[in-house]
Amino acid sequence: MFSQPEITQIINDALQRIQTNQHVDRLYEPVRYAIANGGKRIRPLLMIMAYNLFRDDILRIIDNAIAMEVYHNFTLLHDDVMDKAVMRRGKPCVHVKWNENAAILSGDTMLALSYRLMTENRAFFNCDADPAALYDAMQQAVNTFNEATIGVCEGQHLDMDFETMDDVSEKQYMDMIRLKTSLLLSCSLKIGAQLALAQPRQADLLYTFGEKIGLAFQLQDDLLDVYGDPKVFGKNIGGDIVANKKTFMLIKTLEMASDKHRQELKKWIAMTDFANEDKIKAVTHLYNVSGTRQVCEQKINELFAEGMEALDQLNVTDDKKNPFRQFALKLMNRQS
Amino acid sequence: MFSQPEITQIINDALQRIQTNQHVDRLYEPVRYAIANGGKRIRPLLMIMAYNLFRDDILRIIDNAIAMEVYHNFTLLHDDVMDKAVMRRGKPCVHVKWNENAAILSGDTMLALSYRLMTENRAFFNCDADPAALYDAMQQAVNTFNEATIGVCEGQHLDMDFETMDDVSEKQYMDMIRLKTSLLLSCSLKIGAQLALAQPRQADLLYTFGEKIGLAFQLQDDLLDVYGDPKVFGKNIGGDIVANKKTFMLIKTLEMASDKHRQELKKWIAMTDFANEDKIKAVTHLYNVSGTRQVCEQKINELFAEGMEALDQLNVTDDKKNPFRQFALKLMNRQS
Repeated sequence: MFSQPEITQIINDALQRIQTNQHVDRLYEPVRYAIANGGKRIRPLLMIMAYNLFRDDILRIIDNAIAMEVYHNFTLLHDDVMDKAVMRRGKPCVHVKWNENAAILSGDTMLALSYRLMTENRAFFNCDADPAALYDAMQQAVNTFNEATIGVCEGQHLDMDFETMDDVSEKQYMDMIRLKTSLLLSCSLKIGAQLALAQPRQADLLYTFGEKIGLAFQLQDDLLDVYGDPKVFGKNIGGDIVANKKTFMLIKTLEMASDKHRQELKKWIAMTDFANEDKIKAVTHLYNVSGTRQVCEQKINELFAEGMEALDQLNVTDDKKNPFRQFALKLMNRQS
Repeated sequence: MFSQPEITQIINDALQRIQTNQHVDRLYEPVRYAIANGGKRIRPLLMIMAYNLFRDDILRIIDNAIAMEVYHNFTLLHDDVMDKAVMRRGKPCVHVKWNENAAILSGDTMLALSYRLMTENRAFFNCDADPAALYDAMQQAVNTFNEATIGVCEGQHLDMDFETMDDVSEKQYMDMIRLKTSLLLSCSLKIGAQLALAQPRQADLLYTFGEKIGLAFQLQDDLLDVYGDPKVFGKNIGGDIVANKKTFMLIKTLEMASDKHRQELKKWIAMTDFANEDKIKAVTHLYNVSGTRQVCEQKINELFAEGMEALDQLNVTDDKKNPFRQFALKLMNRQS
């Protein structure tokens, strides 16, 4: 088995070798910039880790793995245009460094590139397995990728739609973060298993593991916006509160609070003139008295446990599951 | 063999049945709007016509065919955002009717949908041909689609890049229109042949036919902007001249004109305060005295002849080639 740093190195090397056309080099400058701008390469890493549960020849699927990373970076690029973000991982966004048209078009190109990487991997067929089984596995992987690429667009749409909705339900919210955050993780894991010719049941368990851990991670992100340690969290505390972002915390408090507290919360949501620290303090108080923190923490624990349960059921030896446990714990910043 | 109206009907029916997710219906409203907004469905039509040269069971590739149309409409949608266009085929552009974010995201979704249609066509495999040959044909078709989707982005980039360049060469211009206009036509034809399990040579000849006719069509569009009949042309005459658009006419005149005429042309290009009709008249005069019209007409005739030559070499009976000849003549608005 390969270690996570080894796999990450292989991924970063492959990302640097993506084939582009010299003729139109200026189109690919923002593409390279966006892809080079770091990140933990979580999605290709998970795909290769999943594959590596069943097979050792991981280089055979490197193109499929980096397809996931190129796709992910495309979504960040276009999301930043739509959100009018300025910075991404400490550097100016593509639409700031170049311009909006360059961001739209280089994003489109990255989406097409991700599909070329996913669908045109000849190395995968250099293998002594039955060619028909290989074709079938690749077809399944591409189907899963289609589910991911379309689903993530749907999730982004729901997220934007929620901005102008007053009554987002918990279910709607969970559906949205499942599409926008979890789906790419769960599909990366599933594709890794599919390309390794694993049994469908194994691929589905890995999918569930990714889905649950992704949901838990997003809810924890919502929670840390309120209760996180600013030094550890990396973003300003209360940013979601100031922006009225419809997080699990806000949605659940609107649902659970007493009439009086709900009215107070709505008053803060409608207010246009306020000091940030006053709003953050008041809304946090409303979250506290409504018991939302406990509900959110419980939900996170449930989802985390469901993810671990899926992992437990996986039909591989326990030592092979450990890197996934470690991965999930590290993602959630937990000790155990 | 199927007639063009029959095929077009099948295409339009299939476009209406594209599977979308009810849950996120508002994401798909602009998608349906963009796809429903007419057009001649040239690309899927050409794909099915090419397939129909070799096989009769055209319904097997309908998903691949409409993939091309969905992709084409995605490019129009994003190009309109980048060009800040207002109307498309007599209706408000998506970013005008909804907003820019909806246009970016529904365009992204259309690109992903086009790939799902191209890569997930199970009907194609319902056939008594050798499964390995079918897999191989589908893989080739997907490779050709990848060439198209990435190439068209490159063409759009070059087109935007030319706006700020002073010295676009004829070769650069021809490369750009080959990518932006011809490639989707030639790849549609090639994919049709590939899916029909035609010999590679036949697929390449159809590709060349599409490429040459596409180039001839674009050059004729450039020519008609100057010399067209406003009643027939459908756009305002001289629009490219007013906007300093780097068409074949402008590029070739800058290359061929006498020093005196070149200076005069550059003066008009640099001028910011002018009456449109004065500029159109003056620049048209410079095109006339430089002989650009003849050079352009000759180039169109050459390209058209090269396209016909590729068609002639195709290894099918002459009556099967006639619909392609008629198609090319109609596209070019010619009698013979």
